[in-house]
Amino acid sequence: MVEVVILGTGNVAFHIFQTFSEAKNIRVIQVYNHKKVSLKSFSKLIDTTTNIHNLKPADFYLLALKDDVISEIAQQLNNHKGIILHTSGAIGLNALQSATNFGVFYPLQSFSKNNTVDFTEIPICIEANSTENLEKIKSLALEISTDVREIDSEQRKALHVAAVFVNNFSNHLYSIGAEICDDHGIDFSILKPLITETALKIKNLKPREAQTGPALRNDQKTIETHLALLPNKHKHIYNLITQSIQDLHGKKL
Amino acid sequence: MVEVVILGTGNVAFHIFQTFSEAKNIRVIQVYNHKKVSLKSFSKLIDTTTNIHNLKPADFYLLALKDDVISEIAQQLNNHKGIILHTSGAIGLNALQSATNFGVFYPLQSFSKNNTVDFTEIPICIEANSTENLEKIKSLALEISTDVREIDSEQRKALHVAAVFVNNFSNHLYSIGAEICDDHGIDFSILKPLITETALKIKNLKPREAQTGPALRNDQKTIETHLALLPNKHKHIYNLITQSIQDLHGKKL
Repeated sequence: MVEVVILGTGNVAFHIFQTFSEAKNIRVIQVYNHKKVSLKSFSKLIDTTTNIHNLKPADFYLLALKDDVISEIAQQLNNHKGIILHTSGAIGLNALQSATNFGVFYPLQSFSKNNTVDFTEIPICIEANSTENLEKIKSLALEISTDVREIDSEQRKALHVAAVFVNNFSNHLYSIGAEICDDHGIDFSILKPLITETALKIKNLKPREAQTGPALRNDQKTIETHLALLPNKHKHIYNLITQSIQDLHGKKL
Repeated sequence: MVEVVILGTGNVAFHIFQTFSEAKNIRVIQVYNHKKVSLKSFSKLIDTTTNIHNLKPADFYLLALKDDVISEIAQQLNNHKGIILHTSGAIGLNALQSATNFGVFYPLQSFSKNNTVDFTEIPICIEANSTENLEKIKSLALEISTDVREIDSEQRKALHVAAVFVNNFSNHLYSIGAEICDDHGIDFSILKPLITETALKIKNLKPREAQTGPALRNDQKTIETHLALLPNKHKHIYNLITQSIQDLHGKKL
């Protein structure tokens, strides 16, 4: 049984708290946040503290915090022997170098408060300051996920950018789709099966092979009809992605 | 039992042929293409013809053809009493007005040759030149799908643009994600659970509410780190979608 203190109360902290609490060999023993109000939903379930000097001895201190405070908080945990972990895609391992034992525990998923998350298939990207710590972090990660991968800081940064494209940016394209539907009195739900199919298709096909549409076909007539129908604010995105598709697939505009 | 002649042998024709063949009350009686070689995979299963003047009498003539030949082919079907249908998102109902009975049968989905498709939940957008024909088309559509919606030509055009955003453009963002992974020695499969979750999340949340990421948080430091890591060709897309997210959510760059 390993004992974990979680620092932070945001979406990542919340979901990791939940999955750790259900794991057989993990015991969350404390949750920290500097604001008492943020601890409200945890305080009925677990010991909480707003005082960083009152953290309990533990095997792991999981910093599920905003990127810009990770290094600073880590420095205040100098005296702890447990492994200090952060959960950020964008922050290097060396942000924790003031500690003795440290590593990264980055679950590659987008967390929202109101969504239940099954961690079993979520890739956990791990990194550590020593082989011994890496093994310990791996064991921790395998308690909740079947997909644990060693990813170094440079790769993790690249992965974080890639995640922005496939997650944040795709979701924004869904928002634009919803806006176009609203503007024309169409129920957005009509697009949901297409959105699902688009995502599921790349389970078996490379995205490049799955590409379809007027940009790929270089169907200028349809492209012009689409541009005529779009408000200016969306024309630029339409043009730029159309051109990017044609560049990737070697078509001429 | 209604009888259908399918004109065209592309992905849409192929998948509609398959689902119609399995439907209880539909009988596909003939497939037409002007090229004999294109009919090869159909000719063992069904009567085929390359001669448009040899089409059999049928209740429906389904034109699953390239947009730019729909009107021309429809004109050659003047003497048929069956309902002439096209399957295009981009073409208006009036492209078929040379016929007596006509309408639109637009399945809102992206079809690839090597993907099996379950039509049950695919929205079928229908339109017709008369209430009577609309009812007949509706009955046909309900044979294969539970989601049949009356959508007029203007709405269908808007829907087609929205579909380009959520399907073609999202898929291209997956391609960019895959490219970034390749460039950094990361197996693209690591992004697949995130892609699936991103698509599934909007079943319960509006895309606008599901938005997360550095653009939404106006996290300049992360945005700059991402831009520094990206090749020039992807910087423009990153910047433009970041700005579009901030415009939609009322953040300032």
